[in-house]
Amino acid sequence: MAGVAQHMLRHRAPVLARQSFSEKLHVRLAAVRPDGRSETARAAWGVRLHLDFTHKSFSHSTRQRSAVVPQVNRGGSKLWKSADDAVADIESGSVVLSSGFGLCGVASTLIAALRNRGPESLRSLTCVSNNAGAEGRGGLALLTENGQVDRMIMSYLGPNKKLERQYLTGKIAVELCPQGTLAERIRAAGSGIPAFFTPTGGQTLVQDGAIPVRFDADGNVVEFGKPRETRIFDGRRYLMETALHGDVAILRAWKVDIAGNCRFRYTTKSFAPLMAKAAKLAIVEAENIVEVGQIDPNDVDLPGIFIDRIVPATQPSLVEILKTRPVGESEEPRAKGEAQIRRDRIARRAAKELKHGFYVNLGVGIPTLAPSFLPPSQQVWIQSENGILGMGDYPLPDAVDPDIINAGKETTTLVPGAATFDSAESFSMIRGGHVDVSVLGALQVSAAGDLANYMIPGKVFKGMGGAMDLVSDPDSTKIVVATEHVARDGTSKVVQTCSLPLTGARVVSTIITDLCVFQVDRRCGGLTLTEVAPGVDVEEVRSKTDASFTVAEDLKAME
Amino acid sequence: MAGVAQHMLRHRAPVLARQSFSEKLHVRLAAVRPDGRSETARAAWGVRLHLDFTHKSFSHSTRQRSAVVPQVNRGGSKLWKSADDAVADIESGSVVLSSGFGLCGVASTLIAALRNRGPESLRSLTCVSNNAGAEGRGGLALLTENGQVDRMIMSYLGPNKKLERQYLTGKIAVELCPQGTLAERIRAAGSGIPAFFTPTGGQTLVQDGAIPVRFDADGNVVEFGKPRETRIFDGRRYLMETALHGDVAILRAWKVDIAGNCRFRYTTKSFAPLMAKAAKLAIVEAENIVEVGQIDPNDVDLPGIFIDRIVPATQPSLVEILKTRPVGESEEPRAKGEAQIRRDRIARRAAKELKHGFYVNLGVGIPTLAPSFLPPSQQVWIQSENGILGMGDYPLPDAVDPDIINAGKETTTLVPGAATFDSAESFSMIRGGHVDVSVLGALQVSAAGDLANYMIPGKVFKGMGGAMDLVSDPDSTKIVVATEHVARDGTSKVVQTCSLPLTGARVVSTIITDLCVFQVDRRCGGLTLTEVAPGVDVEEVRSKTDASFTVAEDLKAME
Repeated sequence: MAGVAQHMLRHRAPVLARQSFSEKLHVRLAAVRPDGRSETARAAWGVRLHLDFTHKSFSHSTRQRSAVVPQVNRGGSKLWKSADDAVADIESGSVVLSSGFGLCGVASTLIAALRNRGPESLRSLTCVSNNAGAEGRGGLALLTENGQVDRMIMSYLGPNKKLERQYLTGKIAVELCPQGTLAERIRAAGSGIPAFFTPTGGQTLVQDGAIPVRFDADGNVVEFGKPRETRIFDGRRYLMETALHGDVAILRAWKVDIAGNCRFRYTTKSFAPLMAKAAKLAIVEAENIVEVGQIDPNDVDLPGIFIDRIVPATQPSLVEILKTRPVGESEEPRAKGEAQIRRDRIARRAAKELKHGFYVNLGVGIPTLAPSFLPPSQQVWIQSENGILGMGDYPLPDAVDPDIINAGKETTTLVPGAATFDSAESFSMIRGGHVDVSVLGALQVSAAGDLANYMIPGKVFKGMGGAMDLVSDPDSTKIVVATEHVARDGTSKVVQTCSLPLTGARVVSTIITDLCVFQVDRRCGGLTLTEVAPGVDVEEVRSKTDASFTVAEDLKAME
Repeated sequence: MAGVAQHMLRHRAPVLARQSFSEKLHVRLAAVRPDGRSETARAAWGVRLHLDFTHKSFSHSTRQRSAVVPQVNRGGSKLWKSADDAVADIESGSVVLSSGFGLCGVASTLIAALRNRGPESLRSLTCVSNNAGAEGRGGLALLTENGQVDRMIMSYLGPNKKLERQYLTGKIAVELCPQGTLAERIRAAGSGIPAFFTPTGGQTLVQDGAIPVRFDADGNVVEFGKPRETRIFDGRRYLMETALHGDVAILRAWKVDIAGNCRFRYTTKSFAPLMAKAAKLAIVEAENIVEVGQIDPNDVDLPGIFIDRIVPATQPSLVEILKTRPVGESEEPRAKGEAQIRRDRIARRAAKELKHGFYVNLGVGIPTLAPSFLPPSQQVWIQSENGILGMGDYPLPDAVDPDIINAGKETTTLVPGAATFDSAESFSMIRGGHVDVSVLGALQVSAAGDLANYMIPGKVFKGMGGAMDLVSDPDSTKIVVATEHVARDGTSKVVQTCSLPLTGARVVSTIITDLCVFQVDRRCGGLTLTEVAPGVDVEEVRSKTDASFTVAEDLKAME
């Protein structure tokens, strides 16, 4: 660790010197000197650092520090009386892989049992999970609030304010990991693969290892992420990511036979099958426990070999964000405010990017509105990165199913022909370039197609979720940004160079705002203004855009 | 290529000089000199070469040479009238990923259509498939026989004599790839992962790139496999393997809706879902074509996003090796020959390695007999690497299902509680160390636990299938060799050092023969004789064993 910290400090100093524009984003970096003492430097960790580490600098261990894990007895019954019994021998310091996405598919019964142990009996856990639950309601928040967690490895903190405070005051370390990389690292651990290469996170703070993992009580950074080794394949740069092993996996399944074969419903399967395989001990809470032979061999989502203990689920399934659509949708035109008109204009234009038969992923906010502007003859398949292909509208109030949620953790529905799958599959689909178009929002988008949409250092620290994965193959999956032209503080979102941490570099092909449309030359860098909104002229665009651009000869009107 | 060939030649010369014992295994190596001319050297490619290449020596391209692939039109119907129509625009030189294991799950209708094109219209194909079909019967053999294939990438040639002849006379190149590595490389291609690390093939000819890929007409080797870069993680050495992309995937599914969602039955799914994702164009032949909405979202094995063309399957499912058990099994003791008594002795002892509740993988031959010696109270789950956990006995004659076969391509059955899965899953299970015991046969097994069981250079060239994967995590999966002590030619199978190409190094923990049992010290190297068969003494063992060993103080009798 000391070596890495020095290495980072050495490389950082000159970069920081010329990055004065990010002065307001500073945090303090406490680096370990060769003599073991700490020296504090001011470091703009929000700035992407142009480091290219060779792998020689690092030693590679794919194992977390580890507790003693209860021995698995293959010959005994897998059926345990209760969750309390099944977690009684889990030791402090264990690495716990915790299933689910948001509160969907979370092992609520087992988490309650772990909490019941109390911090005196069970503490210093490292928890691996996409999210950390909802404060006071469920998920891992029940353990973080209870002082039992030392470290979280996750993709999305979300609105968990208490955890954010624990993070910023050094109570809990947070390793942010892109969602697809998280899923793939867990899959790798279960598959005997110590490391793999991925495009996700290239030229971002993830590559640089520059996101703070742990602060001290005074707000100094005492641990950063690990810089990733990079390597070129087929002319493109990839990051090496290592397997993420667990001591114990806790998961929830719909139907489990007493041999441990598991069946999951819809989007509850996002992480559970991956985590069971990556842990030395896997405990499942079953909504239904059945005899051996009651699950068709073709229907087993997770074979019994991966399950060591089965307990009855006694906690109900939770809905994190209930969203429904009104019964009998009103045909009356509602009066729309100016903001809504602007948003509709962007969404209507974004809809033109969605060709008939396309497979598309839509970010939260404006992108989600786009399909409503498609003519009925034109159908697209919506991918939701938590594990849906063929997502529908919000459910009617009487059709809410807690096991079907979208990537925003809201209740949703499936269209006929939909499929559901785990997160390794979902992000294989995304990272593999199978999705045709991804429409995303932006905090900033640059003239070179760089996108910043996940973090404002010092202000917003929610995590990248799947955003970095979604832009990881921009040659195969067209990345369209759909955003208001100007941020609430009056600054342009379209900029010459992003000052915020990047989600991806040279990824955006088209920018759609309420004022205009730009085409981006991702290879050479540069914007071309191709459409302007009604009542908007080139001068207005120029005055509100913090980037240079050329104007297309056949400049068109945005419809 | 020239650089690699030189590199290999340079490193090989001194090794060959001291490997005179393998004189009979020679083939001729034609290496390319810097000036581009060829020089021929005699090289024992059957000998493991102790090379350790650093990655700097190689350029990495994960793409095969590639043909023009028909453009996918997302907006059009996926349904095609016939296989002939759907393959009409496939170009010569394409890389074709062909699904199935043996003849199970093979796209027979599409292969027939490709053959109908004839070599004038469609040739020089690179075919990627676990096997190459059965001569004159089905699978890719229909294309290799027809002069349409230039290169096969596969794990197991098996008994395909005509292809072996084409290989040895330079008509067809063969890249042998361990089955689990093959599956994972294909999965990686579909998942946007350019490379990964695997333990499989470590310290074997695969690592050294020393298996000939292409001969010339005179039997000189003109192309070898690529030496693999290796790297240490957690103190263990792994090989880097690259993604394996295809131009076109051809697969067969049981039920397909017109959006392309696929459902596969049992062991037909071994490679199909992986291959569809890894190809630019995926064509499925459907045994049943249904409307959208007829497949439950939880039951979709391969989402429609991965399928571009659907054709009706018009060829029947084929059974490669029909095996049944007799109706009303006879209780009469059959008179057993001496060979059978020896085999039973080995199998009976091997059964003691199979504890109640264990998950076990059993190689063909003697290992397969072991479970019949288990007491009824003792149950084990049999893993079959083509994608079964919970394999049963051979089927009754009226219960044969061509969609359920074992790793030997014989018809088999599933026990209650069984699960079936694709080959990436199956080899994740194996390579990830989840299987408790693997019982394997041997050509040679050494005092250090090295195992050779897949190749006799110049004599047997069938391929390694899944053997290298099965021994890839010997710390988690106990490797037991069950074999006759002495080969048919009178030589000992237990040797001080293997002269045959290794399946794995330092992998075997226990050796069970008809004469005795050895425990192997895999760390330090060395055998301890712990049991002798009735009527066998230590002297007899010593005289028939080509390795030194110590005798346990409490030497026991084999039961």
